[in-house]
Amino acid sequence: MQKISESTVKRLSLYLRILEEFEAKNHETLSSEDLASRTGATSAQVRKDLSLFGSFGKRGLGYPISELSKKIRQIMGLEHPSRVILVGAGKLGAALVGYHGFAEHGFNIVAAYDKDRKRIGQSLGSLKVTAEDKLEADLRRDPVDIAIITTPSGVAQEVADRLARCGVRAVLNFTNTKLMVPGEIVVKDVNMAVELESLSFAIQNQYREAI
Amino acid sequence: MQKISESTVKRLSLYLRILEEFEAKNHETLSSEDLASRTGATSAQVRKDLSLFGSFGKRGLGYPISELSKKIRQIMGLEHPSRVILVGAGKLGAALVGYHGFAEHGFNIVAAYDKDRKRIGQSLGSLKVTAEDKLEADLRRDPVDIAIITTPSGVAQEVADRLARCGVRAVLNFTNTKLMVPGEIVVKDVNMAVELESLSFAIQNQYREAI
Repeated sequence: MQKISESTVKRLSLYLRILEEFEAKNHETLSSEDLASRTGATSAQVRKDLSLFGSFGKRGLGYPISELSKKIRQIMGLEHPSRVILVGAGKLGAALVGYHGFAEHGFNIVAAYDKDRKRIGQSLGSLKVTAEDKLEADLRRDPVDIAIITTPSGVAQEVADRLARCGVRAVLNFTNTKLMVPGEIVVKDVNMAVELESLSFAIQNQYREAI
Repeated sequence: MQKISESTVKRLSLYLRILEEFEAKNHETLSSEDLASRTGATSAQVRKDLSLFGSFGKRGLGYPISELSKKIRQIMGLEHPSRVILVGAGKLGAALVGYHGFAEHGFNIVAAYDKDRKRIGQSLGSLKVTAEDKLEADLRRDPVDIAIITTPSGVAQEVADRLARCGVRAVLNFTNTKLMVPGEIVVKDVNMAVELESLSFAIQNQYREAI
């Protein structure tokens, strides 16, 4: 199979969202225009992206929804739910445990770790916060592929090192720290303040251009 | 001033984080290597990025921290705190109101709106959730530049339309909907499930390559 770029992967996620939505409404087919208008891509882009999966969809008939969403799930490794752990059960961590969006897409947060004695044992939805020093033993017994780091930035690298030693393969990093990890581990950074700052920059630049 | 790319803007945010950290420890200068090693950029990249601000930093002496962070704040429109509103006070919205990261970087969430009667009037930190139908009147009295949308995806477009009519200039969109807005409005999407799916894809592909 040819190499798929990161931006294509993001679009596939968005296509999947829309396919699921139309599947829930019992639609059977969807046109490239439908997929395009809802994702901000052009229909030519949609057709090109979906041609990755071979010849799909007939002119005038559109794409078969259930077949296409199954193919996308296959290619993205989403056929089975994933077990995910979270390290750092502060406000943001607690919110993510309660966030429906993850479970809806097959990512089940199965444990939340924290160092803070006041948090350990507290309920977060159906979970209880686990003492962070149990991390290694837990992962030895029940390995997971994906971890979410929502600790304070200052300890994020140390946590990432421990996760790497426990065989975690992918990290969703909500801290400000640029994590250094072995090459086989994938890291995605979600830095919400950085996003706001780039909005601020864009506004500032519009004002400048308007002067 | 020359056009600054989005990836440069993101790196400037990261440099600012590090500068602030070292400023808090009373350091006066920082080398391009320090900035590079903490942000994952090369020191050549750091020097190129910072050369945007004219000639800065002397060979062997490093960059003057307070002067450089002031310049970065200026260029990014971060000299003064920004007032931000949030629409959608569900679990994710509530978490963002409680998230220190925004206020630390000068983004103060001044109001949280929701349609749900059960949520209206509830306390979120120092805020009380406001009825969403007050949005227009509030923004007429106290305009804001930036809004965060954490509503269900199905109503996100309608909320974005209302915000656009009220003069909001930038939107941080946490929903799955690709928002259609007038050209002068900037939108940043933060879609955490999409990030997890792209991690899943990366892991899946490693397995495939390993076979």
